[in-house]
Amino acid sequence: MNDTPRIPRREGAEDYTEDAARERRAWLDEQTGVELPHVGHYSVEPGTLPGNVEGFTGVAQVPIGFAGPLRINGEHARGDFYVPLATTEGTLVASYRRGMRVLSECGGVKTTVVKQAMQRSPVYQFEDARAARDFGRWLEEHLDDVRRVAESTTRIGRLVDIQQWVIGRSLYLRFNYTTGDAAGQNMVSRATYVANEWLRAHAPFEFRYMLSGNIDTDKKHSQMNLLHSRGRHVVAEATLDREILRKRLGVDTSDLYRARNISNVGAFLAGSANNGPHAANGIAALFLATGQDEANVVESHTGIVMGDLLDDGSYWFSVTLPSLIVATRGGGTGLPTQAECLRVLGCEGDGTADKLAEIVAATVLAGDLSLGAAVLAGDWVTSHERLGRNRPAPR
Amino acid sequence: MNDTPRIPRREGAEDYTEDAARERRAWLDEQTGVELPHVGHYSVEPGTLPGNVEGFTGVAQVPIGFAGPLRINGEHARGDFYVPLATTEGTLVASYRRGMRVLSECGGVKTTVVKQAMQRSPVYQFEDARAARDFGRWLEEHLDDVRRVAESTTRIGRLVDIQQWVIGRSLYLRFNYTTGDAAGQNMVSRATYVANEWLRAHAPFEFRYMLSGNIDTDKKHSQMNLLHSRGRHVVAEATLDREILRKRLGVDTSDLYRARNISNVGAFLAGSANNGPHAANGIAALFLATGQDEANVVESHTGIVMGDLLDDGSYWFSVTLPSLIVATRGGGTGLPTQAECLRVLGCEGDGTADKLAEIVAATVLAGDLSLGAAVLAGDWVTSHERLGRNRPAPR
Amino acid sequence: MNDTPRIPRREGAEDYTEDAARERRAWLDEQTGVELPHVGHYSVEPGTLPGNVEGFTGVAQVPIGFAGPLRINGEHARGDFYVPLATTEGTLVASYRRGMRVLSECGGVKTTVVKQAMQRSPVYQFEDARAARDFGRWLEEHLDDVRRVAESTTRIGRLVDIQQWVIGRSLYLRFNYTTGDAAGQNMVSRATYVANEWLRAHAPFEFRYMLSGNIDTDKKHSQMNLLHSRGRHVVAEATLDREILRKRLGVDTSDLYRARNISNVGAFLAGSANNGPHAANGIAALFLATGQDEANVVESHTGIVMGDLLDDGSYWFSVTLPSLIVATRGGGTGLPTQAECLRVLGCEGDGTADKLAEIVAATVLAGDLSLGAAVLAGDWVTSHERLGRNRPAPR
Amino acid sequence: MNDTPRIPRREGAEDYTEDAARERRAWLDEQTGVELPHVGHYSVEPGTLPGNVEGFTGVAQVPIGFAGPLRINGEHARGDFYVPLATTEGTLVASYRRGMRVLSECGGVKTTVVKQAMQRSPVYQFEDARAARDFGRWLEEHLDDVRRVAESTTRIGRLVDIQQWVIGRSLYLRFNYTTGDAAGQNMVSRATYVANEWLRAHAPFEFRYMLSGNIDTDKKHSQMNLLHSRGRHVVAEATLDREILRKRLGVDTSDLYRARNISNVGAFLAGSANNGPHAANGIAALFLATGQDEANVVESHTGIVMGDLLDDGSYWFSVTLPSLIVATRGGGTGLPTQAECLRVLGCEGDGTADKLAEIVAATVLAGDLSLGAAVLAGDWVTSHERLGRNRPAPR
Repeated sequence: MNDTPRIPRREGAEDYTEDAARERRAWLDEQTGVELPHVGHYSVEPGTLPGNVEGFTGVAQVPIGFAGPLRINGEHARGDFYVPLATTEGTLVASYRRGMRVLSECGGVKTTVVKQAMQRSPVYQFEDARAARDFGRWLEEHLDDVRRVAESTTRIGRLVDIQQWVIGRSLYLRFNYTTGDAAGQNMVSRATYVANEWLRAHAPFEFRYMLSGNIDTDKKHSQMNLLHSRGRHVVAEATLDREILRKRLGVDTSDLYRARNISNVGAFLAGSANNGPHAANGIAALFLATGQDEANVVESHTGIVMGDLLDDGSYWFSVTLPSLIVATRGGGTGLPTQAECLRVLGCEGDGTADKLAEIVAATVLAGDLSLGAAVLAGDWVTSHERLGRNRPAPR
Repeated sequence: MNDTPRIPRREGAEDYTEDAARERRAWLDEQTGVELPHVGHYSVEPGTLPGNVEGFTGVAQVPIGFAGPLRINGEHARGDFYVPLATTEGTLVASYRRGMRVLSECGGVKTTVVKQAMQRSPVYQFEDARAARDFGRWLEEHLDDVRRVAESTTRIGRLVDIQQWVIGRSLYLRFNYTTGDAAGQNMVSRATYVANEWLRAHAPFEFRYMLSGNIDTDKKHSQMNLLHSRGRHVVAEATLDREILRKRLGVDTSDLYRARNISNVGAFLAGSANNGPHAANGIAALFLATGQDEANVVESHTGIVMGDLLDDGSYWFSVTLPSLIVATRGGGTGLPTQAECLRVLGCEGDGTADKLAEIVAATVLAGDLSLGAAVLAGDWVTSHERLGRNRPAPR
Repeated sequence: MNDTPRIPRREGAEDYTEDAARERRAWLDEQTGVELPHVGHYSVEPGTLPGNVEGFTGVAQVPIGFAGPLRINGEHARGDFYVPLATTEGTLVASYRRGMRVLSECGGVKTTVVKQAMQRSPVYQFEDARAARDFGRWLEEHLDDVRRVAESTTRIGRLVDIQQWVIGRSLYLRFNYTTGDAAGQNMVSRATYVANEWLRAHAPFEFRYMLSGNIDTDKKHSQMNLLHSRGRHVVAEATLDREILRKRLGVDTSDLYRARNISNVGAFLAGSANNGPHAANGIAALFLATGQDEANVVESHTGIVMGDLLDDGSYWFSVTLPSLIVATRGGGTGLPTQAECLRVLGCEGDGTADKLAEIVAATVLAGDLSLGAAVLAGDWVTSHERLGRNRPAPR
Repeated sequence: MNDTPRIPRREGAEDYTEDAARERRAWLDEQTGVELPHVGHYSVEPGTLPGNVEGFTGVAQVPIGFAGPLRINGEHARGDFYVPLATTEGTLVASYRRGMRVLSECGGVKTTVVKQAMQRSPVYQFEDARAARDFGRWLEEHLDDVRRVAESTTRIGRLVDIQQWVIGRSLYLRFNYTTGDAAGQNMVSRATYVANEWLRAHAPFEFRYMLSGNIDTDKKHSQMNLLHSRGRHVVAEATLDREILRKRLGVDTSDLYRARNISNVGAFLAGSANNGPHAANGIAALFLATGQDEANVVESHTGIVMGDLLDDGSYWFSVTLPSLIVATRGGGTGLPTQAECLRVLGCEGDGTADKLAEIVAATVLAGDLSLGAAVLAGDWVTSHERLGRNRPAPR
């Protein structure tokens, strides 16, 4: 091992220079015989990258297409939006664009942010389950003190509550915070760490703890996140006109409704994180364009699609994203291309994360409508050749 | 709606030109007042982008840092690797780098690709459950015919088997294919579509079908994918020396083993997609750098960490990624920056997807080791002030 | 501890006598001051109880009511059945009776047994993942040998296949058997044990194993059992006439269909083992009456309800029980009251377990129809006072 | 259908007589040719059965064996207990007895009831998600009013809180109650129904509701119940002496600890409701003997086993049952044999349900210890012939 050369690094700010990046590219060329001219082609200023990357060497260039206009009737997002999607998957932009057009023609998407919660989830270990339980009760009674301590570390974060689970003699906790326009993972780690240390000093219990007992569940999908959010819990809904759907998507609303039942059962059978078509596609592409943490796609893609066939034949269609992690501050949101895309969406400045959350949810609705209809139309067109419409079964 | 202007598009190849992209940027500036100089700064050639994006307007620049060297003793990846990670999350590269160093010092990572499976999962509906079951049996008997038809559409794809589930009068199917160096989602869609049409023409049963019954489960985590793969099922493992861990990571192997138990229970409690620390981070960053489909991070982050404390005090540590979707052909792998990064890893050309899968798994192992130890060390350092090591409980 | 008196036991057959049972009741009376006249009131012959219970002291008397007639149009169960339900929960029998009446009036229940699988799931540990994988391939190639060895221990059991999962360096296996009219847990344990020992002697690999790696999943609900059965995979379905439902249950078929969507989403949100109303009630009561293993209710209650609104306004309704463990041989099936109940169902003698499985599934369908409608009618009746039917939303 | 004879019923109290039961048995004999002498052999008084069964015809006799003494150091259960287990599965009583002996020799089982919650979970549907959310906030503010109304229907039940989930435009609610010594399903249904009606009359929102949105999750295992209880959340734990385990169970504590890791991963892979060996066995048998609702085994068997190897070589072992539904009042608890068994446990009269919960949890711990060790010993004995103990791997 010792003989394998290490990638060159410089001290401190010196490592965040064009010179350092170029040196690394040249060094990699020496080691591997691969030149990196495209990786080395960028407009981002290396000096701005501390906090975003270590050992900066260049960039990945990911193509962006814009889809839209998408009409959103949200509480935060209001109007027609052009949505930047960074992707390398053909048809993705086209499919979302198609869904957006139909949604907009049907009057647009209504969006609602229901709640926000970001957490750190330490686990405490006690002498026995009884101590774990009793500490938990003590904690409830001293929640105001804990809140004061935790919030002393942050200007923005607010400790909402602390959920508790006694398993064996361990107490698994979920400290739930609101974190404003930031995703907030670091903010809540710091706040929770300080709260934990305060608890160790002041609570009349002996315990050990780890800062994470794995129920956060950070960078992971989980039923826990589906139930209790990690990020924002957002709903997008629209009422789809039967004629518009027939004309634009080639499907009937009653067939969409029936297909929903089949997809619900498929998702249940598979033990799926989402009963809809492909939320992850829109989320990943929009996250990438706007500087969100790409790994958070895994929490964020969790979702529940619901539909209802109304008496007038129109189809009410919705997607609920219970664990959508978005930020308009911090992370990659300040990088040049990402900041530009956020500005196109009007998501710069204070209080815009809810707006971004609504845009993401509306975008997902567009994509799920488009793909859901495509899967269905593929069947219905061909099936008509052989199976008549009048037979009550099989469908 | 009608009044809202639509994003300019041109016909065919004309839309994939620098001119078209510039026109869109200018048009967006007009509509939103936002200039896109950075989005417009790229070296990718627009004419190469059909199949990757529609309405190309520019790029997202995502910073890349390299971590390594990472010693891998795989069947496909052998040697020391410098791993490109595209991310906007500070400390990510540093954390993976730290884990890679320890793993390499401990002799490197052993990697094993166990199987490959990409699927399309149509659902067939019959007169009743009995017909669904009987068709299923007929299908088993005619698997060779179906395979022949399905494989006629592809040079590379091979239909391995078809899993069946009768639910009510529906038959949910999973057509499992190997797809060589491609991720293969489109390949298997086409093959399965043709097979379905053949079945409708030749099977002595009446049915309707949809091309997806939602158990693929495409762009979604699921227990199904955990059990039956979507992509590759890969294992990375290493035996960690007690002294090296103490020195480099500040933790004892017995504490790592104990913490694993606590994390296992946390993951079980949360209903998590992965019982380890943060596989999604490394996967997302490496996917982004190498042109993988970012949305596939959701399937790919599914995983199982296992550990064992050996009699000599060393710690055997492993991560199993049962649903890792990687490609070295198609998708974004041919884009300029992405192709460069694949070349640095020696993952260009035929037969390199298994190699890339091994590199991803080894990278995830490095990150999970590094973060797992960090969480633990944070506790142990501080806990020592108050709690001695000799007390049998609480821990 | 040593001073606490132990419950009296006798050697061998002497312990299975009326005398031994009476002695224990008297002894318990001495220790606790509680007489057990009712527990001591039974007609079962103690000498027949080896293999059913140790330390026989008396019986639990559980009231039985019969529900029916239930018309079943199965492949094994054909005709009108009077179904014994042993329960202490008021309204249970009445509710199932109501459902059975409606189903029978609508033409009865069609039932289909799709497959059978009982398993033992050893876990093998190897030097590394590669050895685990390679052993797995060797095992596939030698499946006929393993089958021969495993089946040498049983007259009835047949080894169908062996599923494999490489996790870390462990290989988790599921040996799947058909077991005729027996539930078969002991049968497959013995067969698998002998197969494992043969493998250790003959396979050119070094490994350790445990007879269960916890993926059986014995006496536990699991997604694994939902997907791959433990016991029988059975479907019950019926087409419900709109007028009969309105008259008998006070609900409209279109409302049942709509409520199904809502229940599907609820089950998905909750991470439930069954998306229907209360399969466990009918299963537990019928299991108890017919000598099934009560603990197997947990595997057996797993289920998927599907519905469809047909063009003529009738409602197609089904329940799929993928993991239903029933027996007409062995276990408690030979006990006096239990055998009587099996005889009432015509489920004595060879080849009747499939028939019993169909009866259980049809019974579950009756109960789910009845309770599902009751929940709905409670709403609809009252909701009509305030909310008219003509409003397109909310529902 | 009309021709199929219906089971004879009488009006009101007349149906709950020995005469009515005898008539039904005779009638069944006529219809099916099966006599029911054993079913007709009982000491329960038919006149006491309203509320427990309809159409009483006789009983199922289920053999009872007692296991114990089991030393419990609970907060409610204190001392040595003889535990009645009603079962038809051979070795079950013997296995629990073995585990109880070891636990008692090791000082007994510490038990802790952490919380209680029984729920009814209506679903409300609104005009849109925004109304659903806003109603939820209104509900939080008027929780005291709702509590007053709900509790007006019950002497014992207390409404603790109401959990909320906005999915689409539906609001799924969980009304959580404590219900004293009763299981409480009916109690909370009535209370919640009245609360719902009050809400419809008084809340300034328009909505429809169903009394259950399927997240209760009644008679079903669910991740929801694992997280938020249905019944009682109870922990049983014990510290096991290394020498006693070696002598009595033939296993070493370090091997138990290692096997736990393997079982944890197996449970995670399988998506299991319980990561331990067979909680459902003891729960079902004890439920049956003491008049609990047998169908509630499905909620109650959910559980988490945790273990820890202590520095002195002893093994700390625990089981957490987060959703254990027990009652000492109502349901089948007053039936003759069941009441006798409750009296043997000292679980008659007010305030004894917590005691019963502790006894169940301690019993489960005994069974999981016994079976866990048996699985392991089976391996270790045989494995020693071929594989030495000194090899660091494979294990």
